[in-house]
Amino acid sequence: MNAQDPTQARRGRRGGGRAGNLRGQSRGISQSPWTIPVNSDRPTEPLDAESVEAIHNGAMRILEETGVDFLNEEAKSILKTAGCDVDPSSDRVRMDRAFVMGQVKKAPSEFTIVPRNPDRAVTIGGDHMVFVNVSSPPNSMTLDDGRQVGNQKSFRDLIKLSQYFNCIHLIGGYPVEPVDLHASTRHLDCLFDKLTLTDKVCHAYSLGKERVEDVMEMVRIAGGLSHDEFDAAPRMYTNINSSSPLKHDYPMLDGAMRLARRGQSVMVTPFTLSGAMAPVTIAGAVAQSIAEGLAAIALLQVIKPGLPVAYGSFTSNVDMKSGAPAFGTPEYMRATQMSGQMARHYGLPLRASNACASNAPDAQAAWESAFSLWACVSSKVNVVYHAAGWLEGGLIASYEKFVLDCETLQQMTHYMRPATVTEDDIAVDAIKEVGPHGHFFGCNHTQERYETAFYSPFVSDWRNFEAWTEAGAPQAHERANRIWKDILANFEPPPLDEAIRDELADFVARRKTEGGAPTDF
Amino acid sequence: MNAQDPTQARRGRRGGGRAGNLRGQSRGISQSPWTIPVNSDRPTEPLDAESVEAIHNGAMRILEETGVDFLNEEAKSILKTAGCDVDPSSDRVRMDRAFVMGQVKKAPSEFTIVPRNPDRAVTIGGDHMVFVNVSSPPNSMTLDDGRQVGNQKSFRDLIKLSQYFNCIHLIGGYPVEPVDLHASTRHLDCLFDKLTLTDKVCHAYSLGKERVEDVMEMVRIAGGLSHDEFDAAPRMYTNINSSSPLKHDYPMLDGAMRLARRGQSVMVTPFTLSGAMAPVTIAGAVAQSIAEGLAAIALLQVIKPGLPVAYGSFTSNVDMKSGAPAFGTPEYMRATQMSGQMARHYGLPLRASNACASNAPDAQAAWESAFSLWACVSSKVNVVYHAAGWLEGGLIASYEKFVLDCETLQQMTHYMRPATVTEDDIAVDAIKEVGPHGHFFGCNHTQERYETAFYSPFVSDWRNFEAWTEAGAPQAHERANRIWKDILANFEPPPLDEAIRDELADFVARRKTEGGAPTDF
Repeated sequence: MNAQDPTQARRGRRGGGRAGNLRGQSRGISQSPWTIPVNSDRPTEPLDAESVEAIHNGAMRILEETGVDFLNEEAKSILKTAGCDVDPSSDRVRMDRAFVMGQVKKAPSEFTIVPRNPDRAVTIGGDHMVFVNVSSPPNSMTLDDGRQVGNQKSFRDLIKLSQYFNCIHLIGGYPVEPVDLHASTRHLDCLFDKLTLTDKVCHAYSLGKERVEDVMEMVRIAGGLSHDEFDAAPRMYTNINSSSPLKHDYPMLDGAMRLARRGQSVMVTPFTLSGAMAPVTIAGAVAQSIAEGLAAIALLQVIKPGLPVAYGSFTSNVDMKSGAPAFGTPEYMRATQMSGQMARHYGLPLRASNACASNAPDAQAAWESAFSLWACVSSKVNVVYHAAGWLEGGLIASYEKFVLDCETLQQMTHYMRPATVTEDDIAVDAIKEVGPHGHFFGCNHTQERYETAFYSPFVSDWRNFEAWTEAGAPQAHERANRIWKDILANFEPPPLDEAIRDELADFVARRKTEGGAPTDF
Repeated sequence: MNAQDPTQARRGRRGGGRAGNLRGQSRGISQSPWTIPVNSDRPTEPLDAESVEAIHNGAMRILEETGVDFLNEEAKSILKTAGCDVDPSSDRVRMDRAFVMGQVKKAPSEFTIVPRNPDRAVTIGGDHMVFVNVSSPPNSMTLDDGRQVGNQKSFRDLIKLSQYFNCIHLIGGYPVEPVDLHASTRHLDCLFDKLTLTDKVCHAYSLGKERVEDVMEMVRIAGGLSHDEFDAAPRMYTNINSSSPLKHDYPMLDGAMRLARRGQSVMVTPFTLSGAMAPVTIAGAVAQSIAEGLAAIALLQVIKPGLPVAYGSFTSNVDMKSGAPAFGTPEYMRATQMSGQMARHYGLPLRASNACASNAPDAQAAWESAFSLWACVSSKVNVVYHAAGWLEGGLIASYEKFVLDCETLQQMTHYMRPATVTEDDIAVDAIKEVGPHGHFFGCNHTQERYETAFYSPFVSDWRNFEAWTEAGAPQAHERANRIWKDILANFEPPPLDEAIRDELADFVARRKTEGGAPTDF
């Protein structure tokens, strides 16, 4: 069977049984099974112990001396009650290190989020590493249609790809913003699609009370949960960004606090572009990011002690000639590794991203993404956001890039399998059997193992030049184009109880009648 | 200045001074200066101490129980005299672990090779990491002309690129085989070009007595050295491959022994494709590679105790469906990391490669190469062969891929600069100065550092989509195409004393008259 030919691959799978409750896979390609990768390698640590302490001290001094603006009266009031120094004439909150560290210490180092299909539960923290689809680009892009403003069709397509690929563990924000849906009810349509077209962990945007409450309610309904059951453990998450430098804005804080009260997990991700919204030095940008991140995490731990949270690192640099943001750079790698050291210092799970600046799914996109991903692996990142599909600094969700990224994510998952070095693996006897005048294709040692010995790709083309030329010399992104078309053409949504589906539909209809969410927040 | 426009970049450099004796740079792009990267990060180590011992034990058992064929009477005779068990009825040599380890222990863990320009000296071993251009493909490829059989023009073009880029530290084998030059005198023309168009460390193919002796003599002449000076320290190197499984062939051994006698360095690189010429298990393929490598290194240490050698790891896997070799795979990464542990166990410098299987300089080529390169970084590889230009499993030297690879090599070099985490770097005061309502573009902390703070690319395009589209939406390999054309158009060879150049030319002329090397070895 030729792995490059999805039609063949599909035929090869037809009639095969389906395992467990991990359905909803189309018949497209031969992909790796669902698994949560475990990254047990030692991380790369550019900082010595003294430097970790110095960056910690810097972050604490930022919080103590300069403080962070909390643009949310409720948050300020909670922090004031908790003993923080809240400036009555501004939004500035200063907090001392004893308070911050006392709160941060309450956060678990590892937690599990259980979506409507419990077989898709994900563990965040420790040695676990999970991947999230691209989130929030305003545009989609395909080889066929070029760059286009996002709409419901591209949203659904990318949601289907996110469900299809077993290497995508969580559904992030909208994989593209469907601007043809009215902003006041968009979240209802999008969440209905997410909860019916996927069975993986869902995300809520922190964009106003109604959206957040609606999403929590829909996740509760989809899981067939009582309110108490929903509140008892993480079923979903939100991700909030600070407005760097040193600001947390109203809706982000509001949404995070709403989830916190119901025990739902929150990732706090300052977006600190070194040289623009953060110092031009990587150590400084990381210190600022830590300060911004811990400030919000401390607030959330006051509200709900022990709340599952993750610290998100998104420190990259800008091009100092043009101010353009850069991704997958040496600076991003080092910033992420430093952030990994700091996250372990605080005992917090770490989020980072698979980002690139390229405008096309070309070689630049691939090496920037590979650098980003190896940054994540070498930093022991727990949650890789934007793991598949991101282009143009996050302004494009590319169908082809999505497929290409999944190939590299699968390879990384394979890479993380523990090495086995038994006597049999070392194969002295097989080597003796083959000797200097044979080869290993036919020997028993090979025959017993060859089917699962190596990672088997679905995009990578290992044919020789002649066979490849004969086939039209398809470049990687052209092969990816054929693959996503095949996947979408054959997509089957995961099973969902009809009654639950109806309840979700009724909820959406009712909330639409009520007008959805205000759009002037 | 727009970094994507080489014409602009060139203008920006015109009239600038030239530093030191590192000349021979054309005015093409704005590239990083010549430096030997130092990789001081902790390596990734998939093996525990017990597994290192088990693979060592496996390698020793292979040498003791099965042995290796040495297809060279002189080598067998030397090994017999040294006490090895040489089968009189075959080429099989068995050696016990005490002998092997006693010989391997004599090899230095670090050494320096000094080419004709001493400012281009390279240190091999320790934390040093050096890059070698692609070596030995039969074909070249450009966007303009597609894949073509190598000739003197493409050979020279690729030699010029190898000289031009400061991130290429050694000149490897022929970057493409110039088949329009007669095989008997090809080495004379090629070495004349290498020694006049470049001033970096040169390589000799181990392909028969005459070729090896001619190259040593030409390197001696180019360096202006007496025979004694040449013999006193490494001035060049050869790389030999075993014929896996378990064979060292005549010309490779002959060449290596000739260099050894004159104190010139040798890299020994078994090419052990797991599942084909080596066991389907990575631990087994590594054990076999170690056995093959140490067998030749032991021979060389008998001939010249303390000879500078490197162990070369080239364990990758094949596609078990088609038998096609694969590169830049998870298996390659782990094999290289294991080889790094074994090389450190033996105190030997390590060589590996930047390989890929892709037939085009596309996304697949980029991620396979990035995976290969991060394998090298995480394994603490000292010499990265094929670091720039390799495509199609080594059958193509691509001009565009060469340029793309150099961008990633420069990034890696930048990445390896040690992190600085001073008080000033942590920037608490700058963050206080900017506060929550400013940005860092204009502050003093940024102004003092911005020019050198970040890696500045020459291929990566960080323009926004609109500006990029306006410019014709050039993909990475198309930008690379413009860059190599600019570099070649402006190439200036490095300075060379006229008398030495004449002596080299005379030597080539004389040896051509004598008929060069026999072609029927």
